[in-house]
Amino acid sequence: MPRFMTVSDPTPVAGGGLLSRRAFLQGAIVLGAGAAVSAEAADAHLTAALPSQKTLGRPFSGYGVPSRFEADVKRSIVPRYGAMAPGNGVSFTPLEFLQGIVTPAGLHFERHHNGVPDIDPAEHTLTVHGLVERPLRFGIDQLLRYPMTSRTMFIECSGNSARIAGTETPKLSCGQIHGLVSCSEWTGVTVRTLLEEAGVKPDARWVVAEGADAATLARSIPLSKMLDDAVLALYQNGERLRPEQGYPLRLVLPGWEGNMSIKWLHRLKLVDMPGQFRDETSHYTDLQPDGKALQFTFPMDVKSVITRLSPGWILQGAGLYEVSGLAWSGHGRIAAVEVSGDGGRTWAEAELREPVLSQCLTAFRVPWQWNGAPVALMSRARDERGHVQPRRADWMKAHGPNQRYHYNAVQAWRIDARGGIENAPL
Amino acid sequence: MPRFMTVSDPTPVAGGGLLSRRAFLQGAIVLGAGAAVSAEAADAHLTAALPSQKTLGRPFSGYGVPSRFEADVKRSIVPRYGAMAPGNGVSFTPLEFLQGIVTPAGLHFERHHNGVPDIDPAEHTLTVHGLVERPLRFGIDQLLRYPMTSRTMFIECSGNSARIAGTETPKLSCGQIHGLVSCSEWTGVTVRTLLEEAGVKPDARWVVAEGADAATLARSIPLSKMLDDAVLALYQNGERLRPEQGYPLRLVLPGWEGNMSIKWLHRLKLVDMPGQFRDETSHYTDLQPDGKALQFTFPMDVKSVITRLSPGWILQGAGLYEVSGLAWSGHGRIAAVEVSGDGGRTWAEAELREPVLSQCLTAFRVPWQWNGAPVALMSRARDERGHVQPRRADWMKAHGPNQRYHYNAVQAWRIDARGGIENAPL
Repeated sequence: MPRFMTVSDPTPVAGGGLLSRRAFLQGAIVLGAGAAVSAEAADAHLTAALPSQKTLGRPFSGYGVPSRFEADVKRSIVPRYGAMAPGNGVSFTPLEFLQGIVTPAGLHFERHHNGVPDIDPAEHTLTVHGLVERPLRFGIDQLLRYPMTSRTMFIECSGNSARIAGTETPKLSCGQIHGLVSCSEWTGVTVRTLLEEAGVKPDARWVVAEGADAATLARSIPLSKMLDDAVLALYQNGERLRPEQGYPLRLVLPGWEGNMSIKWLHRLKLVDMPGQFRDETSHYTDLQPDGKALQFTFPMDVKSVITRLSPGWILQGAGLYEVSGLAWSGHGRIAAVEVSGDGGRTWAEAELREPVLSQCLTAFRVPWQWNGAPVALMSRARDERGHVQPRRADWMKAHGPNQRYHYNAVQAWRIDARGGIENAPL
Repeated sequence: MPRFMTVSDPTPVAGGGLLSRRAFLQGAIVLGAGAAVSAEAADAHLTAALPSQKTLGRPFSGYGVPSRFEADVKRSIVPRYGAMAPGNGVSFTPLEFLQGIVTPAGLHFERHHNGVPDIDPAEHTLTVHGLVERPLRFGIDQLLRYPMTSRTMFIECSGNSARIAGTETPKLSCGQIHGLVSCSEWTGVTVRTLLEEAGVKPDARWVVAEGADAATLARSIPLSKMLDDAVLALYQNGERLRPEQGYPLRLVLPGWEGNMSIKWLHRLKLVDMPGQFRDETSHYTDLQPDGKALQFTFPMDVKSVITRLSPGWILQGAGLYEVSGLAWSGHGRIAAVEVSGDGGRTWAEAELREPVLSQCLTAFRVPWQWNGAPVALMSRARDERGHVQPRRADWMKAHGPNQRYHYNAVQAWRIDARGGIENAPL
């Protein structure tokens, strides 16, 4: 049990024990989680060599992997159609195990429709054709010569959080619900550079991007977005793309639904009308309560989730905790994140951790004094364009129970008196 | 061969063909690296399915790894004493293969003195003792409960670039020379938090940090640094530390020589005088021309290196190229990077890529029009405190040929008429 725990200002700023975001910033934080030992015991313990100090460690490695004690930290795989289509499904990033805004490349979520192709970059090309002055073809080695841009950005599947978008309230982890969002430092060539080289014809309005995978996944993208900030990514988190993220070439559309950031990209065709492909008609459209569906709803809306103190964490009794999580918006920067400890009646403003980047995961944190009674923790984000995360009931009312894309409602985690945490449909 | 290549402003701003850093930012960049194809050929090529579109891809994975076509991108391992001490040596980050400021965790450089211990986090503790009011012991689970801080920061070995600090001019890659620097998003608990909980006695001036590895590596660190910005890192690039980076707990001292960022940290002992350990007396001291050695030279100085267009890259003839690289300083933010294409007579200012963070790798780039003649490319960084990278001759004069730590002189890459690149002692 903790011996003592204090912060510089223990006055709650909202119900349920939420403290000022500055309480952890100013001077003494005494959590009291450390065990007291006598000076003699401390010295004695440290004089005797540990087993790891008596054994030669393992040698150097060309490419490192995580500790064997972290084997549980992996993507959670959910096939979409079972054994019938083994390459169709998703794998979720285990958000509850992670800290910081960069997702390790090995844990970036996956959504494939027909598996991960094994592409030799020496054989791969990108063709730019259709309504252009000069159709062009680029090898990967040629693309590597172009000026590069880097941005740390999230990619979120349009179907992220769909497991709770209906009336079900499954008891899953934070990552299993919301882990179809990940964030990387993407580096590559701007689409604009190649389109200008090819010469855009005046009647071009859309660009069809197509993947070289067995699903031949294709989407229609407004030309304006392609000229604005679209990137042909060659690198992810410093190294070349991972195969499951589109190696050797991925289109990345900042802030827009992940399905459009075409992996294994092999062509950009400029056209005057959208192609009406499978993934922009029968899928990735937003069914409304009146039975009509919205098409081409591209940006991912403002969203946040508490990751630390989420299902799987077990609180060790009443006391001081840090509540932290991630917020993001496809519309721009996060302006604020608020946290509630009383079911949404009152809210405390969380601290946003630098850097706060546009269309990028943003970390937030707030100190919380738990009195040991059952409570629900929620977070609500607002972006610089004024979008605010809706409460779950409001989202359901607006979209109905059959709409599973673009779910961005406030997530509540219910904490019971024993310190267990689970998904609550508040 | 390129068909045509233009930028918005092709006027050189410095000798050797260096262009304005804005030449790539304003409007049309036409590198002309793409191959022209007829509209008919483009369409025909794209109608026939590719092999990867006819084969079901591989299934989902719990933890991803790089493409098999990237197997050459690995750390370069150099044993220090050969078979006599297999756990003693270094492995270098392959900087020439990377883009962006984050180093993939699997490619972070290593420097071990007795191998990588295999530590069970459930058995590992951190003891804070010595000149404190209350000696304390923390398990990893306890530390995970504390407020966390995140910062993207470089760690550089004090012996980085030592292979060229003498009079030798080995023909090595950029990473094999300068790859004992890497950069990660480190997340953990501030040292200050635990020291305040333990209560620092008035006569404490230094803190001895010791690792639980077979080298029992220990260093003495000024208390002021520990209270200022030292972090007990639990996470690296989002996930828990890699074993070779100190799993489960590493001390990270922003901007200071990497040897002091003690891995596998198991104790902090507050003392009144430095311990005069091996790695602060016979090693990691700076031998001067007069035979005396400087001790406790902690911060890593301002430095930069061109990574893209470095040994291993082969230029495909005269034309337009982007020159890019990394700069960093242990003293703070990078203020400017200049690039020379004429052996250091004239310099062009490079563009710094956002974000520019303190004590963090900073990416720079500059457009360069190569006329096909032999040339040497160099970069020179300046930090916000006014430190400037010295020329190699000046560094050698100041430190002499036997000083192998804290080498930060300007690196020149000589490009021959065939487009080959090698290390040049300019």
